[in-house]
Amino acid sequence: MANKKNLDDIEPYRAGKPIEEVKREMALEEVVKMASNENPLGPSPKALAAVRKNLGEINHYPDGNCFYLKSALEKKWDLDKDCFVIGNGSDEIVMLMAATFLDEGDEAIIGWPSFVIYPLVIKKFGGQVVLVKLKDFRYDLSAMAKALTKNTKLIFIANPNNPTGTIITRDEMNKFLQEIPQSVLVVFDEAYAELVDSPSYPETINLIKERPNLVMLRSFSKAYGLAGLRIGYGAGSKEIIGYLNKMREPFNVNKLAQMAAAAALEDAEFLAKTKKLIQTGRKYLYRALRKRGINCIPTEANFILMEMPLSGEEVFERMLKKGIIVRPLKEYHLENYIRLTIGKPNHNRQFIEVLDKVLFKSSP
Amino acid sequence: MANKKNLDDIEPYRAGKPIEEVKREMALEEVVKMASNENPLGPSPKALAAVRKNLGEINHYPDGNCFYLKSALEKKWDLDKDCFVIGNGSDEIVMLMAATFLDEGDEAIIGWPSFVIYPLVIKKFGGQVVLVKLKDFRYDLSAMAKALTKNTKLIFIANPNNPTGTIITRDEMNKFLQEIPQSVLVVFDEAYAELVDSPSYPETINLIKERPNLVMLRSFSKAYGLAGLRIGYGAGSKEIIGYLNKMREPFNVNKLAQMAAAAALEDAEFLAKTKKLIQTGRKYLYRALRKRGINCIPTEANFILMEMPLSGEEVFERMLKKGIIVRPLKEYHLENYIRLTIGKPNHNRQFIEVLDKVLFKSSP
Repeated sequence: MANKKNLDDIEPYRAGKPIEEVKREMALEEVVKMASNENPLGPSPKALAAVRKNLGEINHYPDGNCFYLKSALEKKWDLDKDCFVIGNGSDEIVMLMAATFLDEGDEAIIGWPSFVIYPLVIKKFGGQVVLVKLKDFRYDLSAMAKALTKNTKLIFIANPNNPTGTIITRDEMNKFLQEIPQSVLVVFDEAYAELVDSPSYPETINLIKERPNLVMLRSFSKAYGLAGLRIGYGAGSKEIIGYLNKMREPFNVNKLAQMAAAAALEDAEFLAKTKKLIQTGRKYLYRALRKRGINCIPTEANFILMEMPLSGEEVFERMLKKGIIVRPLKEYHLENYIRLTIGKPNHNRQFIEVLDKVLFKSSP
Repeated sequence: MANKKNLDDIEPYRAGKPIEEVKREMALEEVVKMASNENPLGPSPKALAAVRKNLGEINHYPDGNCFYLKSALEKKWDLDKDCFVIGNGSDEIVMLMAATFLDEGDEAIIGWPSFVIYPLVIKKFGGQVVLVKLKDFRYDLSAMAKALTKNTKLIFIANPNNPTGTIITRDEMNKFLQEIPQSVLVVFDEAYAELVDSPSYPETINLIKERPNLVMLRSFSKAYGLAGLRIGYGAGSKEIIGYLNKMREPFNVNKLAQMAAAAALEDAEFLAKTKKLIQTGRKYLYRALRKRGINCIPTEANFILMEMPLSGEEVFERMLKKGIIVRPLKEYHLENYIRLTIGKPNHNRQFIEVLDKVLFKSSP
């Protein structure tokens, strides 16, 4: 089969196994998944109620324009409905950015390590991936600005970054944007924004109102607990968003996800509870890891990157046998690291107990 | 914003308004939507039960490989799991075919009028649309074979065709395929297959086992009543399907849709009930329309194309005011036609009553 795309060079994204399969294979009664940065509190209760209410309607097509959700976003962000595109997960919008704006040979700059989907979609749509290494686990923005060429079309920045959990501050972002010409599109992927504590985290929405070359992505998969429904959104100028809305499929977002997301936006209580859980979990894990001499990167998200005394794959395999799934980071080229999703207090404790067994054989 | 794609020439797909919005605007208490070929019996009850059972799990990512649904399909079709790609609706797979296999300037042949999404996706990914007009509302397959050039990469055929409801028979398909070189991919979009009565409808799955250049698409939106969840699939050779699976996003199908679809495949009772309803509806509508001298095309699907004595848009507007939504077909270049989704008996009767008022002012 003739195929001129770059697909032959692409390794497909490696999704974690379904828990049910892991249980079966390992003959385990309980498995705790701390690998996919899901919300351990479950879905937002308001979202769940909205889903239940609409179950009888799933024989009808969803609203192709996501009218109600866009109305809620318009109100939340004080930004016109036409400045939003809703995606089948925010990763669909990452894909749409590449599909819409990259032509054969165009360059797209990304930091590395960062979200593995970025280099995949850039290659899929014929673009050239320009990797700029992180410095001390943070974006090296001046090196990224220096990587600009006349062929640069797109820049993807995850803020907080995955898998490091580090952020770009407001000042750093402003400085960076001054060096980027308006012809280059900059995507700030803020999938974990709702979980950030730092007061210097940027308010990207205000920049969007001023600069037509920015797109902000948000997700309902993390803080709102709706990963299984697939929904996220992009905000930007009417022109860019107009193209993305033309490029997407007409019914790309399922009905239940639309209803759930609109309801989740109103669920301040659940969001507060989630933030509290993550804050508590961070503190507990920082202390427990430090006590064991394990280096971890301070995080603004719901996961922690940590250095292991053996390969991440080996730690993954050993922990899996004891019923805990963590994320090895070989595909991020961080062979001796794992990424741990912060869980409920009992899961965090269980992780530390299992880690002790796996690394030290006995508690320190 | 520099944009070399064809997006500036593309009119976005016009989705029907949500019923809630129509009710509000028209101050109507009840609105019957007979415009989107949805299942009037609602979703499959087995599917709905599967959705309910998994509601508490929507904070977890879906299985990126759709393991359980693919297992069910493997069993149903006696075809290896790796021969299936699951889509966020089968229209996602239409898009993936174009995104994966069309390069700038490649030609894709479609019949016309047919599903409006085909020309849109071809243009979006830089392809040239080659339209071959239907003959007597049926595909003109010999004209399509004659339209082949050295640049032809892809052919889309809807069987049954939308909006005509007509089919290509087994013999016609076999004859056609003999004229198509293996280097040209042929997509048979069988979104309405489960509703076909004709014994001469092809068993495409058997051809797929023989010919590596075919892809069969199926949908859960129509006969299974799951349009709101967005799920469909493609079957083909491991090679073609392998490329599509690389091209798609890793979590393109939401969790509830996967569970619902796997359950729906087992719901033979619901499928039989749906088929019966459509058969009864067809008979009633054929007779009622004939009595009024209205020309309609015999259908193998759950919709009927019919000719109006005035413009379809006008009929649409007049019927809307009386609480019935039908589909005008201006974008299909069938100005004097409407497409009606076959409904429950009371809805079909209501349609005829309203049609009488709208066309004849009094019953004939």
